[in-house]
Amino acid sequence: MKGKFISLEGGEGSGKTTAILFIQQWLDKQNINYLMTREPGGTPLAEEIRQLILTPREERVNDVAELLLVFAARAQHLAQKIQPALARGTWVVSDRFLDSSYVYQGHARGGDIAMLDHLADWVVGESKPDATLVLDVPVELGLQRVAERKHADRLDKESNDFHQKVRQGFLDRAATEPERVKVIDASLSLEEVQQQIEAQLVALQQSWTREE
Amino acid sequence: MKGKFISLEGGEGSGKTTAILFIQQWLDKQNINYLMTREPGGTPLAEEIRQLILTPREERVNDVAELLLVFAARAQHLAQKIQPALARGTWVVSDRFLDSSYVYQGHARGGDIAMLDHLADWVVGESKPDATLVLDVPVELGLQRVAERKHADRLDKESNDFHQKVRQGFLDRAATEPERVKVIDASLSLEEVQQQIEAQLVALQQSWTREE
Repeated sequence: MKGKFISLEGGEGSGKTTAILFIQQWLDKQNINYLMTREPGGTPLAEEIRQLILTPREERVNDVAELLLVFAARAQHLAQKIQPALARGTWVVSDRFLDSSYVYQGHARGGDIAMLDHLADWVVGESKPDATLVLDVPVELGLQRVAERKHADRLDKESNDFHQKVRQGFLDRAATEPERVKVIDASLSLEEVQQQIEAQLVALQQSWTREE
Repeated sequence: MKGKFISLEGGEGSGKTTAILFIQQWLDKQNINYLMTREPGGTPLAEEIRQLILTPREERVNDVAELLLVFAARAQHLAQKIQPALARGTWVVSDRFLDSSYVYQGHARGGDIAMLDHLADWVVGESKPDATLVLDVPVELGLQRVAERKHADRLDKESNDFHQKVRQGFLDRAATEPERVKVIDASLSLEEVQQQIEAQLVALQQSWTREE
């Protein structure tokens, strides 16, 4: 029985890290084998690509170059880690996946959506997540949470307008693929956020055990 | 007046390095401003991508990931180095460029030519070289030259069959775009090889000065 593939998405300060810890604890309680991973990254080569992307540098990074680096890391991540895990029945939980490319490189930076579609077909194909949880918070609340952190990387330094586009981009992704992409209201209390996440996990588990 | 863009191509041991030195000396003699570069690489980020590609590693490198890394480096190289140089009238000589992707990732490894065409249109577009010189030698001669070198990187370790496909791939590129891609018989004496190269450089120079 193939494992389930879950991706977590959301803007800066949306509480992804806390949500991922909650999912991990829930999977432990259900005795489900799982693997936690992240994008860009997930394999040694893909993590090296991640470093190339996130390292602040004087050289202006060309938008097309950045998009291709992200998809190169994704191709490696899928082939070497995600697909083999799913095939042996392990669930995979990824901190960001395909939707982040559409939102950051596409919607927010005005990248070429037709080329994104080509790359998505070519690199991801049928290997889209079974469920993508978008943690949605108003931009002000997200940025306030980020300000409380100690370090900021290149993507954190973008403008408020950029973060508004990111939020809207994720909501658009959910509207386009409502069966796969679920919006979690992450501005509510921790308990209420976790209840929403758990409901999605239970639905996945039921579809999974029905396959037995 | 826009500079001319020359790329050098050829399999292992075809004498590219010697040919590039000859071109450099010829450009010096003509008092033409030029910039020598190489692919993958050419900018700090693109050189870091080159290292990712060429470093031997235990992890199997997915073919699609490698192709996207090469085009990511190319997008950066074009935007940050090649196009600005050509715009200010500087000639650019690149050790490998687009044709290597078609030959190594496409012809030799069976990559998706339709996707290569998409990436070429998207990343390179109208910025193809004005002249591409393919240094052609029989595989046996090329491999004999390589064997005399001290180190071998990942691509040098491919099989004889692979090198035959590489040679044929470059010849096919020349047959497809004969106006741009010129085959140099690099099995001849050094002097005869340089005469062939010089003839191509003179033709480029004449088309360049006619633009004045």
